[in-house]
Parts: sequence; C-alpha cells; structure tokens
Amino acid sequence: MRLAMIGLGRMGAGIARRLMEHGHEIVGFDHNAEAVDALAGDGATPATSLEDVAAKLQTPRIFWVMLPAGDPTESTIEALMAIADAGDIIIDGGNSFYKDDIRRAKAARERSLHYVDVGTSGGVWGLSRGFCMMIGGDTETVDRLDPIFEALAPGVGTIPPTPNRLNREGCDTRAEKGYIHTGDAGSGHFVKMVHNGIEYGLMQAYAEGFDVLKGKSSDRLPEDERFDLNLTDIAEVWRRGSVISSWLLDLSADALAKDQMLDSYSGKVADSGEGRWTIDAAMEEAVPAYVLSAALFARYRSRVEGTFGDKLLSAMRFGFGGHVEMPQ
Amino acid sequence: MRLAMIGLGRMGAGIARRLMEHGHEIVGFDHNAEAVDALAGDGATPATSLEDVAAKLQTPRIFWVMLPAGDPTESTIEALMAIADAGDIIIDGGNSFYKDDIRRAKAARERSLHYVDVGTSGGVWGLSRGFCMMIGGDTETVDRLDPIFEALAPGVGTIPPTPNRLNREGCDTRAEKGYIHTGDAGSGHFVKMVHNGIEYGLMQAYAEGFDVLKGKSSDRLPEDERFDLNLTDIAEVWRRGSVISSWLLDLSADALAKDQMLDSYSGKVADSGEGRWTIDAAMEEAVPAYVLSAALFARYRSRVEGTFGDKLLSAMRFGFGGHVEMPQ
Amino acid sequence: MRLAMIGLGRMGAGIARRLMEHGHEIVGFDHNAEAVDALAGDGATPATSLEDVAAKLQTPRIFWVMLPAGDPTESTIEALMAIADAGDIIIDGGNSFYKDDIRRAKAARERSLHYVDVGTSGGVWGLSRGFCMMIGGDTETVDRLDPIFEALAPGVGTIPPTPNRLNREGCDTRAEKGYIHTGDAGSGHFVKMVHNGIEYGLMQAYAEGFDVLKGKSSDRLPEDERFDLNLTDIAEVWRRGSVISSWLLDLSADALAKDQMLDSYSGKVADSGEGRWTIDAAMEEAVPAYVLSAALFARYRSRVEGTFGDKLLSAMRFGFGGHVEMPQ
Amino acid sequence: MRLAMIGLGRMGAGIARRLMEHGHEIVGFDHNAEAVDALAGDGATPATSLEDVAAKLQTPRIFWVMLPAGDPTESTIEALMAIADAGDIIIDGGNSFYKDDIRRAKAARERSLHYVDVGTSGGVWGLSRGFCMMIGGDTETVDRLDPIFEALAPGVGTIPPTPNRLNREGCDTRAEKGYIHTGDAGSGHFVKMVHNGIEYGLMQAYAEGFDVLKGKSSDRLPEDERFDLNLTDIAEVWRRGSVISSWLLDLSADALAKDQMLDSYSGKVADSGEGRWTIDAAMEEAVPAYVLSAALFARYRSRVEGTFGDKLLSAMRFGFGGHVEMPQ
Repeated sequence: MRLAMIGLGRMGAGIARRLMEHGHEIVGFDHNAEAVDALAGDGATPATSLEDVAAKLQTPRIFWVMLPAGDPTESTIEALMAIADAGDIIIDGGNSFYKDDIRRAKAARERSLHYVDVGTSGGVWGLSRGFCMMIGGDTETVDRLDPIFEALAPGVGTIPPTPNRLNREGCDTRAEKGYIHTGDAGSGHFVKMVHNGIEYGLMQAYAEGFDVLKGKSSDRLPEDERFDLNLTDIAEVWRRGSVISSWLLDLSADALAKDQMLDSYSGKVADSGEGRWTIDAAMEEAVPAYVLSAALFARYRSRVEGTFGDKLLSAMRFGFGGHVEMPQ
Repeated sequence: MRLAMIGLGRMGAGIARRLMEHGHEIVGFDHNAEAVDALAGDGATPATSLEDVAAKLQTPRIFWVMLPAGDPTESTIEALMAIADAGDIIIDGGNSFYKDDIRRAKAARERSLHYVDVGTSGGVWGLSRGFCMMIGGDTETVDRLDPIFEALAPGVGTIPPTPNRLNREGCDTRAEKGYIHTGDAGSGHFVKMVHNGIEYGLMQAYAEGFDVLKGKSSDRLPEDERFDLNLTDIAEVWRRGSVISSWLLDLSADALAKDQMLDSYSGKVADSGEGRWTIDAAMEEAVPAYVLSAALFARYRSRVEGTFGDKLLSAMRFGFGGHVEMPQ
Repeated sequence: MRLAMIGLGRMGAGIARRLMEHGHEIVGFDHNAEAVDALAGDGATPATSLEDVAAKLQTPRIFWVMLPAGDPTESTIEALMAIADAGDIIIDGGNSFYKDDIRRAKAARERSLHYVDVGTSGGVWGLSRGFCMMIGGDTETVDRLDPIFEALAPGVGTIPPTPNRLNREGCDTRAEKGYIHTGDAGSGHFVKMVHNGIEYGLMQAYAEGFDVLKGKSSDRLPEDERFDLNLTDIAEVWRRGSVISSWLLDLSADALAKDQMLDSYSGKVADSGEGRWTIDAAMEEAVPAYVLSAALFARYRSRVEGTFGDKLLSAMRFGFGGHVEMPQ
Repeated sequence: MRLAMIGLGRMGAGIARRLMEHGHEIVGFDHNAEAVDALAGDGATPATSLEDVAAKLQTPRIFWVMLPAGDPTESTIEALMAIADAGDIIIDGGNSFYKDDIRRAKAARERSLHYVDVGTSGGVWGLSRGFCMMIGGDTETVDRLDPIFEALAPGVGTIPPTPNRLNREGCDTRAEKGYIHTGDAGSGHFVKMVHNGIEYGLMQAYAEGFDVLKGKSSDRLPEDERFDLNLTDIAEVWRRGSVISSWLLDLSADALAKDQMLDSYSGKVADSGEGRWTIDAAMEEAVPAYVLSAALFARYRSRVEGTFGDKLLSAMRFGFGGHVEMPQ
C-alpha cells in the first residue's frame, strides 16, 4: 500500500522503514528536511508540505501522523482534515489522549473522513522486534489497513501459543500476530494507556523488591540478619523459570549486569501522560487503583528533594512532642 | 498514694510532679543523680538504687517505670521482679511493644506480682493538659490505682460531652475524664499503638493536602489556573467550624503562623516503633491498612535522597525506550 | 444588606435564615414554591422567577446561588448573567469544580459582572455552629460582601487563639472568625476541595485504626494475644487530651456510643467530586497523594462485592500454582 | 548423588522424580505410606521412619526436607538434628521464614551439621519446566550439592542471554541455568520471599489494569466514552512485543481465553506468609513498599464483605452531613 508518514522522528522513520521493507510505499514528511532526505535515501518519496503529501497520494489517501501528543498532533490533524477528501484516512500513531481521538474522530466523520488511532508498545525495540499495536476505528477502515498493521506487527514468532485459544472459536487471530482492533476510535489509545498504567505498576513492584533486597545489607539490621546480595545474579536467575519472569525483568537484569549499583542513574523518574490518564479513567469508573497510583506517585516523589508536606510533619511532631528532626 | 517513679526524664519527672501536686507521695529514682535531686527539691523522697526504692515503699509496693522502650525498660522490670514481694505492682508507663507486656505480665503473674501497662498520649502538652491514658492489667489492680490515674488525667474539663453517652448505661465514666481500662495487660499499649498509627495517617493527610495547596502556585500549571494561597490563614480558618478541625491542625496552624515556608525544617521525618507495629498488627489480623502504611512509608521516603528502586526505574526506562532521565 | 438566595434546600434555606437573623434582607427563590413560601413565612421576600428576583433587588444586585454543582448551578448562573446589569455580583455557594468558577468568572468579567465562589465546610452543623468559608473573587467585591460572610461565620467563639498569630502582623483577622478571602475566583472552591480531600484521608485513618482495634479479638490470632476492646470508650478517651482528638473523632465517638457495632450501616460509602478532583489537582502538580488517593479508593472498593481484578488474581494463582480459592 | 526426600507431596515427589530421571538416587519418606510406595514404584528406596532414612544413606548424609513451613518443617528438622552425624547436610526446600533458617542453621552449626535453605519458584510448572532456585548456605556445602541443583534447574534452554553478561567476568554462570547461591543460610528463602512480594505487586498491577479496561463499558460513563473491550484478545496481544509481556500475563491470557468473565472465580484471594514477611522486611529496613503492601492489602480486602472501617466512614458522614448511605 501507499501511505504518508508525517513525522519522521525515531519512531516515525522506523515505522516507515519497516513498512518499505515489507513492500509498502511511503511518502515522507517532516519539518526537519534532513529527516525527509534520509528517508528518501532509503526509497521514500519526499514531500515538502502537507499539501505536497496529499498531492503525492492517490485517493482514498492514508495519512499516518507520528508526532508528539498534544499541539503538534492536534494542529497537524486539523490541517489534514482541511486538505483531505471524503474517504481519506487519518491515522494517529502517537501517544494521544483517547478523548482527543474521540473528539477528532467525530470531526472527521462529519467530513466523511476516517480516523484511526494506533497505540503502539515496544519502545525502541519495536523497530527490530515489531510493534505491538492496539487499533481503534471503524471496522471497515481498520480491515482495509490490515496489510500495514501486519507488516508492522511482530508476527507469531517463537512465542508459544496460549493453550486455551487453540481449541476456541471467535478469537481474533490478529492478536497472535501482535495487533488487534480494539473498537471504535479512541479505544486503541485507551488500551495502550492502560498498558502503560500497568507498566508503571510492574516497574514499581520490581523497584520496591530490589530496594528490599539491597536494604538487607543495611547496618541498621542485627548483624546476623544481614545479607549482602548479588542483585545482578538474582535478576538473572529470576528470568529462568520463576513466576516473575518478564521483559521488564530482562531489561533489569541487563542494566544490573552492566552496573550493579546503577550509579549512572540519579533516580529522578519522568512520567508521561498515560500513567495519569489511567488514574483519571479509574476514578471516572470508580475502580480502585492503589498500585497504579502509588507507582505514579513514586515517580513524582523521586523528583523532589524534600516535600513541603514532610516539613509539615516535622513541624507537627515538634509541636506535640518537642521532637527535633532526626540527624540521619 | 505512695509510689516510686523510676526514670525521671521529662515525662517521668512531669508525671511525678503532677502526682505530688495532687497529694501523692513519690519515691524518685534515676541513674542521673541530678534528676533525683531536682525532684527531691520538689518534695520527692530520693532513692539511690532499685533496692533503695523498694525499701522506701510499703507493701504492696507500686513501681512506675518510665524509661525508653526496649532494653532499659526490660532490664529494669526484670530487676524489679527479682526484688519485689508478692502483691507488688509494676507499672510500665513507657512506649513498650504490647507483646512484651503480655510476656512480662505472665512472668509477673508467676511470681504473684501485678503488671500494668499504661499508654499515654498528649506529648509534652500532657504535663499541663493532663495525660490521656490507656491502661491494661487486671481489673482489681487497675481499680486500686485509680487515684493515681485520675490525678494524671485531664479530667472532664470544657470538652463537650458526647450526646449519645448521656442517656446510656454501661459507659465507663473514666473515659470522660481521659483514661480507660482497656483490658488485660498489653491492651493499654496496644490501644496506644493504634492511636499512634492513626496519628501517622492523620498527619500524612494534612501533609498531602497542604502539599497540594502549595503546589497550586507552580509554574507548571496554566497561568490562569494558579493560586498563590496563604497557607497560614487557611490552616487557621479550618480550625473554625470546618469538618477537619483537630488538635493536629491547631499545631499546624501554629507552625505555619510562625513561618509559612517551614524553612527551619528539613523534612526528614522520624518514626517510632508504633507506626510499624500497627502495620504488623494489621497484617496479623488481615486488615487492609493502606493509609496507615502509606503514612509510614512517606516517613521512610523522606529520609533518603534517591532510592535504589528509583534508579532501577530509570534503568528500565532507558532499556525499553532509550529515555534519559529528566533534567529537572 | 439585601441579597437573593436562589436555591432554598436545606443549606440555602439555612443560610438565608441565619442571614435574616443577623439583620440582612433576603429575596428567596426556588423551583419548589413550598420552599419559597416557608422562607417567606420567616420574613423573606418571595420571588417567582429569576427575573422577579432581579426586579426585587436594587443594583448592584447580589445573587447567591445555592444549588447542586453541575447543570443546575451552570444553567442558573448562565441565566443570571443574561439578566444581570453591570456591577451585579453572582455568588456560587455550592460545591462547584473550581475550574468551572474560573471559566464563569471570566465570562462574568466580560459582562462587567463580579463572580465570587464560596466553599463552605461544616455540613448540617454549620446552621447552628456557623459556616467555615473559603471565598474566591476580586478583593473589592469580597470586601463589599463582608457583612454577609461575617454573619454566616462561626465567629471567634471559645476556640483558643493560635499562639503564634498573637504577636504577628499581617495575619488576616477574618480567619479567626471562620472565613477567609483565598484569592481570585475559583480559589475558594479549590481550597474547599482540598479540605475535602484531607477529610477523606483523616476519615480513612480513623477507619483503618478502628478496624485494627476491632480485629484484635479475631480468633485467627493466638489466644493470649487477643483483646476484646471497647471501641466506644476508646473513641471517648481519645477525645480527652490525646494527639488525635478532632471533630471527626467526636462524631465517631458519638456514633459508637449509640451502637458499638455500627450495625445500622452497610459500609457502602459514597464519594462526591471533591475527593477525585483533589487527586486530579495533585497529578497536575505532580504532588504525591498516596493517602488521599487510598482514602478515595477505599470508598470505591466499599461499593463492590468482588472486583474483576480479584478474580484475575485468583485465576493467575490457579494458573501458576494450582491454588484453588480459599473457602473463607 | 544419593539423598533423602522427606515429604512426598506434589512438590517433594516431583523433585524426587526429576532427580531420579537425572541419575540421582532417592530414599523417600512420608507419613503417608502410599506416597512412599508410589515413589518406590518409580525406583526410590522406601523408608519407614527418619531413623530408617538415616540408615539408608551413607555419611555425609543429605536430607532434603520438603514439608509445609512452620511446625511440620520445624519438628522434622529438629528430629533430624538429633539423628544426624557430624558433616551431614539438612536442606529445607519448603517455604520457611528466613529467620527460622538463620536460627536453625546456627543450631546445626553447633552440632557440626550443614544447613541449606532452598527457595524455589515455578509452582506446579516447575516439575516440567525445571525449578528456579535461590540457595542459602555455606559455600562448600552448596558447591558439593551442585549436581542436585543443576538437575533440578531449568537449564539455559531457549531464553536469550542477557547481553551485558556476555562480555563480563565474575557473573555466576549458575544463574543462567536457573539457580544461584545467594549467601549464608536464610538468604535463599529471603530472596524467594522478596520474589513473592514482587509477584504480589505484579499481579495486582495487572488486576487493576484489567479492572480499568473492564470498567470502561460501565453505564456510569458518558455514552460516547464507553468501550466494550475484548479482554481476552488484549491480554493476548500484549504477549506479543509489548513492554508488559511476562509469564503472569501468559497465565492471564490463558485464563481469559477460557472464560473472559472469569465467572468460575469468586475473587477471594489467599495470601501466604511471604507477602507479609516482605513488608516486615521493608519496615525493618525502612524501605517504602507502597505497591507491595497495597497488593497484599487488596487480598485481605477481597476476603471481607464490608469492613468495620467502612461502616465507621458511613457513620461519620451521617454525623457531619446527614448523608445516608448510597443505595447502590
């Protein structure tokens, strides 16, 4: 198929290349002309503006927008809606907030355009492993784009099948290849958002566990209850047949194998919108999200040196008990 | 009544003085001779050793031990058990772990001694306001000591009565004066322990709330959504008819009135055993304690600059997304 | 002063009566004619429509809207903006989301109207105790309305002054009477919102603590470590000089004095918007809110019998360990 | 090697069989004679008592105890210590609390015996996949037992190597085969304990995430913001290249493929000691464990229908606001 890739950063360029490798044709556009040139060098058709992009596709056109969520995506999609003809397809492949998708899909529908949102997981590894994709949009359009998604997905590979799927009808076979149609527009990014919420929780569980392992050598403990544990080997052994083996553990094992003290990291941890939006969604649904929220808050806390709230605790303790702060 | 006060630190000396003011006689002992002399100057009978203490009381003797929990209390009570005669009473007025009380009370019973544990709240303010006391031990002994407890308690004072107690039989009238017999030995410190667990939770709720108020002036927010709030006046107004008025809020209002920025505090917050023991008790009972544990953990977190777990989060993020840490 | 009270439910009627008792004149309106008649019987001027309300006030008019947050408040304020003349004042005394205030205040400004938001705490008790008020709006308008707020506030009363305020300049003396001007429009409801967030946290701290006390009689514990505690007397004694005394504890003591088992309650706990909005605000500010969020989630959890997530835990345990669910 | 397997339940028998398949000789003992006979049928030497076990091994003997933690393990190891000769080895392969190991290892040392604790992960799947083992004990003894551990471990298999281990010296190659020597006695069970603590956290992260996905179809949401998601396919697609792929997700995908509603589960989730001990360890080390504790508490909460604490919340709300409980 022939489609435009708008936004040729690491992810956009990677997706474009993977698609070309699978025989698709790419019209590439980015405000950074060097990025366009680089992709053109790999066989893409370069474009100099959104209008030029449109001119270089045949209708119904396929525009894949791969830009940072928020203003860049919003303004580009707005511009595309003005340019596009009835029947054209706009794909938002970034990390948009799903309610923005719902709104934009409605606007697209009013102009007889199709809107598809694609949440992708896999990080920079997706370029080689393939992308795990969660796709929202109308069924006809998502089906029409299937060759693109199949090319991007990791495929069945060597991952063992899920036993209970084998003898069951009605399972979407695309799931086994690494992509699914999740429902109407917005649902792709919603599912991806929850994926990231879970990711935060999983990461924090490992983080706390390794903190407990590391703390076991603390001299605040009785001497015969201390262990000086090899975290590198522990992470490695847990990859082998343990209940908590996972890809995040694989990454942890690799990081620890490089430097068991992780001294190159300060531990100030960023968060993107998805973690927060997941808590918002939980609150809208009245679903308890203790772990997912605690994982998010741990990141906030990692970025401040001493909270005002902590000072207030000290002030209260001084107030009722004359306690001065601990010297530690 | 005549009793010994063993341990004449701030709390022990204060309790002894309050008792003498109410007409009780005190034999005072401390390893620090100056503390003994000071109390003797106020009318106490000085003692030079535990044996001397015993000699200066008539049987059945009353020993009030007011020492740091752990070894000092343990060794002193052990020594007293060896010295005491059948029928004597040992009171642990410190912050002991209630299971230690249960064990020591059993040992005392085997020697025909009486063991009473007194949990006290009120901090340094108790010296003037009176102490809120939770008392464990056998009923006959606790009743016999009633004049002592009544003298120490704040009394009915100006606190309005609880409406539903007025027309109800079976309520312990001591509760309205500020002390209760909670049950067998150990129960006094158990109830005091949970009191402190709750205290941690209350404090953390205020801490987080004031953090949110303070953060509302952050320039990470849209300009028209920022407020530069006067935390001092907010704390004060909440003391006046709001649902969240409390003594801890009174203390907060006072601290904020002195320095709204709380700049004299580093925010490294200590914790004593009670917070931890409360979580232990919750786990033994399989009771969810999300808030009480989070309040405890916030104190732990306040005392480290960057956890190993946080570094592991950064390492994982680098692993899957090539994310470098945020500059902030 | 003369002002309109629009919305004569329990709160609106109570505020109107308290104002009339303090010599203010009220024009009362409600869709429920009986509520209007009842207030007229107490001396208010009845009105039959918003237009009638406007006709019965002299400019600059004061409209106090006391309606449920959301649509009722929104549509009424919109209608008032169309009716009002330049210089008129619209007060939202309900539980609005502060961002709605910011938006409405901006719209009001564009029409040369003044918008004031009043967050009130004190619940049904405020009718007799007076209301604790947090007021947002432009200074001139808030100052002009001072007689109204002073009449509604509890006043200095018998609450002891905060020591550090006594010898300090620059403290807002209104705070000691129970109301403050918090800043621009929206800030009143924002501060009230955080107040409620804290309220949730405080309540949950007590709830967990009493759960631990109650669970101590559980037969899952070793027999010599069980206590059958009198929760009614414990709540009462903690009102007397303890660190955790508070108005919420007073209410708890009263409820427990009526029925120690609290058997008349199912324990399905509602939440209003403020708890959730506080978490939203915390996330916007990147402030950790472990306790406030956990308190909110506990309410969500109280309203479901068994979560899907819990079933998934059981399914995983069966998957890796063949564990069947516990019979309990 | 020749060793005794004491305790022939599912795990003990499975381990014994796997060892025999790898050429080791087993003396089998269990209070259940049928279990002994069954294993004898597979080639083991049956024993009728611990003394008989000892008689059928040559010194230095190897006793592998595979019994429930607590009394059964404790009393058996005590009996073995009395029977054993200097130089004999006692292995505790169960789920013991690591402080019990430390104590027992000390007692063993005083009798010139060797004590080894083996924490195993892998659940019932370990019988076919091999067991991931964390082993505590003195180096000489653990090294001597290496053929046993290597036989039980999953081996390198098809799991890709950790890149940073390849070009690094000093990494324990046993880790890549699925077992490690963690340090002194007790450390094996300690590491396994933290493993389980992490496991709780991971499971709860998935549980909350799927709860949010499922709740997205709730009719409490605006109609155009609802999605009716296929959880079965979502779990499957996340196995394929996503950041949150893991063995626990594999199990979830399988359970959901069997029944997307998980209707056969009540959602009352048990917990074993390890989750609680991990929180204890965190508190001893002053390490924040928000997520691990919340995961534990969620299990507690899953097993009660309505907590006393929730009732107290309702009672307070009635007290301050006259709120009656929600009908829902």
